[in-house]
Amino acid sequence: MAGNSIGQNFTVTTFGESHGVALGCIIDGCPPGLALSEQDMQHDLDRRRPGTSRYTTARREADEVQVLSGVFEGKTTGTSIGLLIKNTDQRSQDYSNIKDLFRPGHADYTYQQKYGTRDYRGGGRSSARETAMRVAAGAVAKKYLKRVHNIEIYGYLSQLGPIAAEQVDVAQIEQNAFFFPDASKLDALDEYMRDLKKSGDSIGAKVSVVASNVPVGLGEPVFDRLDADIAHALMGINAVKGVEIGDGFDVVEQKGSEHRDLMSVDGFESNHAGGVLGGISSGQPIVAHMALKPTSSISIPGQSMTKQGDTADVVTKGRHDPCVGIRAVPIAEAMLAIVLMDHLLRHRAQNHDVQTSTPIIGMK
Amino acid sequence: MAGNSIGQNFTVTTFGESHGVALGCIIDGCPPGLALSEQDMQHDLDRRRPGTSRYTTARREADEVQVLSGVFEGKTTGTSIGLLIKNTDQRSQDYSNIKDLFRPGHADYTYQQKYGTRDYRGGGRSSARETAMRVAAGAVAKKYLKRVHNIEIYGYLSQLGPIAAEQVDVAQIEQNAFFFPDASKLDALDEYMRDLKKSGDSIGAKVSVVASNVPVGLGEPVFDRLDADIAHALMGINAVKGVEIGDGFDVVEQKGSEHRDLMSVDGFESNHAGGVLGGISSGQPIVAHMALKPTSSISIPGQSMTKQGDTADVVTKGRHDPCVGIRAVPIAEAMLAIVLMDHLLRHRAQNHDVQTSTPIIGMK
Amino acid sequence: MAGNSIGQNFTVTTFGESHGVALGCIIDGCPPGLALSEQDMQHDLDRRRPGTSRYTTARREADEVQVLSGVFEGKTTGTSIGLLIKNTDQRSQDYSNIKDLFRPGHADYTYQQKYGTRDYRGGGRSSARETAMRVAAGAVAKKYLKRVHNIEIYGYLSQLGPIAAEQVDVAQIEQNAFFFPDASKLDALDEYMRDLKKSGDSIGAKVSVVASNVPVGLGEPVFDRLDADIAHALMGINAVKGVEIGDGFDVVEQKGSEHRDLMSVDGFESNHAGGVLGGISSGQPIVAHMALKPTSSISIPGQSMTKQGDTADVVTKGRHDPCVGIRAVPIAEAMLAIVLMDHLLRHRAQNHDVQTSTPIIGMK
Amino acid sequence: MAGNSIGQNFTVTTFGESHGVALGCIIDGCPPGLALSEQDMQHDLDRRRPGTSRYTTARREADEVQVLSGVFEGKTTGTSIGLLIKNTDQRSQDYSNIKDLFRPGHADYTYQQKYGTRDYRGGGRSSARETAMRVAAGAVAKKYLKRVHNIEIYGYLSQLGPIAAEQVDVAQIEQNAFFFPDASKLDALDEYMRDLKKSGDSIGAKVSVVASNVPVGLGEPVFDRLDADIAHALMGINAVKGVEIGDGFDVVEQKGSEHRDLMSVDGFESNHAGGVLGGISSGQPIVAHMALKPTSSISIPGQSMTKQGDTADVVTKGRHDPCVGIRAVPIAEAMLAIVLMDHLLRHRAQNHDVQTSTPIIGMK
Repeated sequence: MAGNSIGQNFTVTTFGESHGVALGCIIDGCPPGLALSEQDMQHDLDRRRPGTSRYTTARREADEVQVLSGVFEGKTTGTSIGLLIKNTDQRSQDYSNIKDLFRPGHADYTYQQKYGTRDYRGGGRSSARETAMRVAAGAVAKKYLKRVHNIEIYGYLSQLGPIAAEQVDVAQIEQNAFFFPDASKLDALDEYMRDLKKSGDSIGAKVSVVASNVPVGLGEPVFDRLDADIAHALMGINAVKGVEIGDGFDVVEQKGSEHRDLMSVDGFESNHAGGVLGGISSGQPIVAHMALKPTSSISIPGQSMTKQGDTADVVTKGRHDPCVGIRAVPIAEAMLAIVLMDHLLRHRAQNHDVQTSTPIIGMK
Repeated sequence: MAGNSIGQNFTVTTFGESHGVALGCIIDGCPPGLALSEQDMQHDLDRRRPGTSRYTTARREADEVQVLSGVFEGKTTGTSIGLLIKNTDQRSQDYSNIKDLFRPGHADYTYQQKYGTRDYRGGGRSSARETAMRVAAGAVAKKYLKRVHNIEIYGYLSQLGPIAAEQVDVAQIEQNAFFFPDASKLDALDEYMRDLKKSGDSIGAKVSVVASNVPVGLGEPVFDRLDADIAHALMGINAVKGVEIGDGFDVVEQKGSEHRDLMSVDGFESNHAGGVLGGISSGQPIVAHMALKPTSSISIPGQSMTKQGDTADVVTKGRHDPCVGIRAVPIAEAMLAIVLMDHLLRHRAQNHDVQTSTPIIGMK
Repeated sequence: MAGNSIGQNFTVTTFGESHGVALGCIIDGCPPGLALSEQDMQHDLDRRRPGTSRYTTARREADEVQVLSGVFEGKTTGTSIGLLIKNTDQRSQDYSNIKDLFRPGHADYTYQQKYGTRDYRGGGRSSARETAMRVAAGAVAKKYLKRVHNIEIYGYLSQLGPIAAEQVDVAQIEQNAFFFPDASKLDALDEYMRDLKKSGDSIGAKVSVVASNVPVGLGEPVFDRLDADIAHALMGINAVKGVEIGDGFDVVEQKGSEHRDLMSVDGFESNHAGGVLGGISSGQPIVAHMALKPTSSISIPGQSMTKQGDTADVVTKGRHDPCVGIRAVPIAEAMLAIVLMDHLLRHRAQNHDVQTSTPIIGMK
Repeated sequence: MAGNSIGQNFTVTTFGESHGVALGCIIDGCPPGLALSEQDMQHDLDRRRPGTSRYTTARREADEVQVLSGVFEGKTTGTSIGLLIKNTDQRSQDYSNIKDLFRPGHADYTYQQKYGTRDYRGGGRSSARETAMRVAAGAVAKKYLKRVHNIEIYGYLSQLGPIAAEQVDVAQIEQNAFFFPDASKLDALDEYMRDLKKSGDSIGAKVSVVASNVPVGLGEPVFDRLDADIAHALMGINAVKGVEIGDGFDVVEQKGSEHRDLMSVDGFESNHAGGVLGGISSGQPIVAHMALKPTSSISIPGQSMTKQGDTADVVTKGRHDPCVGIRAVPIAEAMLAIVLMDHLLRHRAQNHDVQTSTPIIGMK
């Protein structure tokens, strides 16, 4: 299939540009019988929505999602689910000046070169606005995973520039505008962001995402390993430049005796692996991290090129997040949910019904 | 398709267990007319092959690949290419003692739980031996990319435990058994590995891989972005726990004014992006890094479980790499080549022939 | 991908129920630069639309399609194209009486058993109404094929019950409400349909579809042969029970000396093959036929079952085509166009650029 | 994926040319725990094998299949299964004279034009020899379907030229070299074939294939309908020009009151639909038919072209079936088995576990 779909048995296909008529997606392969309404998606859409705090872009979009098909009498029917979000606050005029300009760090140049044309308004298809539909689709997966397997997924901002969370208090995450799990650092974050905004610059971030109660056995080696598909899904989020599973790049300096997770009758005694062994979920929490680059939409001038081949200085005006990592938290959760949902269905397809596995004593 | 295939228009499907009869793969979608023989693959197979230095496993496999189809009169015909490598040095007796044992850090437990059974000999399908076929298939992609687009791909060990390359001298890489690009650190590496082997432990590593002369325009947003597919391919290599594109996790602490690659009439002035913008290749070199965990096959005892639910101490004897990262260099190159090849074909499929893009002056 | 998508490099994914809020689809992989507007699709939508003659269902739907994305300044951008048609004439009340009833010959029973639930209003997802989006997507493919390769696609009703076209006058097809190419039989058709309507019964039909100027080389053996994919696309249209390429079932009684198409310097001398040899287009016109069953929605009572397991007599009232084959003509054209478009892109991906084929003298 | 794979969750990928080193395939997605050995495939391979009667080609191939992976201690492990058949009776010298010749009715011309090159020995990849691997893979699917769901699949020759079976006696099928189910016509068949062989000509055929005990619910509308995927699989067999489900082309002249299958408390009262309603299996036997053209390899001269653009008369010498339809019986069974297997797994993936369907009284 072409590039706007993800997932094999649970497939999400999206469309929509930043300043087009609407964003939409089709969820195909959702099992029937799941109670589903717009409200189930709106919560996560609101978490991702711009304009909810002073540290995110001031663009105001209601991001009201509409279910167009696939749900009957309040439940999914097993047929394809059509979702739509109309664009309401488009302000196309903001962007006409960059029509022929390749903003540095943006996808303007590569889109133009790949397609020979591009919708330059607000980044067109390359805008982070596109991720709204991922969040909507992810909410459907999240609900199914929770209802059927009690799988819980949560994400948080683990680092913003130099400020890293030193403890992860899950209860804290939704209590602040940063999705930050360490209350002791909120003042520092606030101050850092205020200074950053004043300077007209932007900053990178690290986002972590965790899924607990994931059954053992998800992942289809040797290529569609669970960790490989999580890496694909997270690296496919705008601005992401790195993905880690479990200890991630820390393993470079670890010894084997240090890294391997020992087992006892109570299960694994640690989780350096991040819940994946040999590309298959181990029953431990899935833990992934991703690095997001600082947005290139800043008010500090930077040299660039025009479509005509001239150099030009670029200054971004208008509404932009100084740290795109913050709003990426619900997107990361959504992508992890979509991958787990797809792998749950894929695993179920192959389920060994000829010879059942012997249950392992002392392990779940 | 099920999990043992990768690529859409250039598809590689593999089979084979560590101690089975043979390993094999089918390359489907290779364009016709490419001169191809076993010799084209043997070089990279030899680079990956165990037993070539004292720092890799002593298992001795000729790893001689045989072309069974898809090549006629020395050239590819456009039909599917069948490749075969027979296993010759299997020593099954080494493994019978771990039949019922889940070695910590290995895929024994997850394979057993997923499938209800497993080929326990040498890790079966989860063995790194499986990657030989990836290297063979990758060599075909590498040859095509070089011949048709002059794309060059090379990888190297950028860090082994605490020892990181401080300079990258490409000419140096193939001059030592570590694929290490910094000659000034070879003695330190040698000493480190000697001590490590004595201690019976293992160590993690970081491998980097670079592709130059990649045309602008490869990548299919929003999900099959080039960076997302590279992440999928690299994270799908055994023991990999992290993947970075360009600056990777360093972006977390970068500012926008620092990260963005400015442009002049001579092209980009830096490559923090690692050759990918908005999921599409920019014409700059593609740069990726991956973190490999230390192998869990070590001679230091570790507590584990048996299939019957009892605890047991595990000591790995026999032939194992103390640093699996070293031999991962040709595998990383192969996977990058397969991804680029697939995206080259995918991009070609969509090629804009209705309206041709205006060439950008001053940019390649 | 799940079942509501078709095509690999040109992918069409649809959603929507007969009596839901809207129908929609996403076209992914359309090359950039194609001039496209709603008008390009409306013509074929109108040809398929119910209520346009007295021999089709009286349901009145404007079937106005809206382009939501993927087109900028009048041309495709290469990104995914979102299309929407709102349902306006739904009359749900017509269907409440069949809530628990499995109408014979319909998909009521199989949908209920497969999914454990179903949208019973007007057949829900199994309604032929779903094909409107196929026609819209097909119109995009048709336009591209015509613009870039001058490929022409047309379909016609070749037989309705006992009345078969004896000659095919292409100019005649759009001159009558039957898409019938033999003017000498129009009176007979008219009379047959009048009698049929009076009797409350329905009738089967045969539809033919032809594509000319198709380049040699489309089709990806051995499984994704062009003929195999055409069969998949046509058999996937509601009510179709048979598909033929070229001479189709007539070949059963043909001898080899009779069937094979001889060649001369002017090309092929006949087209028994229907334009496909070895699963690859030969440059001759692609010719396919399909058999459509008579609709089961008739006013003659028939015994059926309820969800509760009781027998019940079914009489269909309301608006239904006595011959669903008639309106299937634009659907068949659309599906053929989608398959050709996908194969054109797939062939282009593999295009042999290492060694170019020697052009064959005297053959196009 | 490229064109040499079929199936989504149960994927079969093949390679191999008529006169290459070997044929092979990879079965990916087979559930673990199925007892499997070479013997399970050999029976069907022998049924397809040439040289077993005087009415099939005299080429002698042992067609001995070898299992290279995916089976451990006699059972499938859930990993990819590699299969290999070595070519032993290749006689390449027979074919050198057709190196530059496009035999009429064959794929020589289209392969040459598509790929710019071709393996001309025995038709290369376009040879029916390639179907041996389909039969091997189909045997695995057949065994699983039988073991787990008691699904029975059998095919037969329903017509050869003018001689059609008037009754279907399943017990008779394997009792004669024609797979013909009507013993009363065996003498006529024998005489017809003797005359045909004398004349140097060939003849078309119709093959039927039936699967019983198929559970309700297989098929993924609206595009991956079960009937659409059967059509794809059967039309993808060499020489097939038409496919029917149930009554097939007879529906063109049927009335709705005649075609629809009425239901009673004992289930369906007829099976005009051929076991598929709305693209989903109904629990009735799946019934499909296919038309096979007469082979173009005949000893009656026919005009053709050379690669250089000259005309030339073609006379096929050597070993060829006068009716390729006969040996197509096990191939049709294999393809149906592969499709059902894939859809069984796909349906299982989506299985409604949130809300279970109410069982229908009186229906299986």
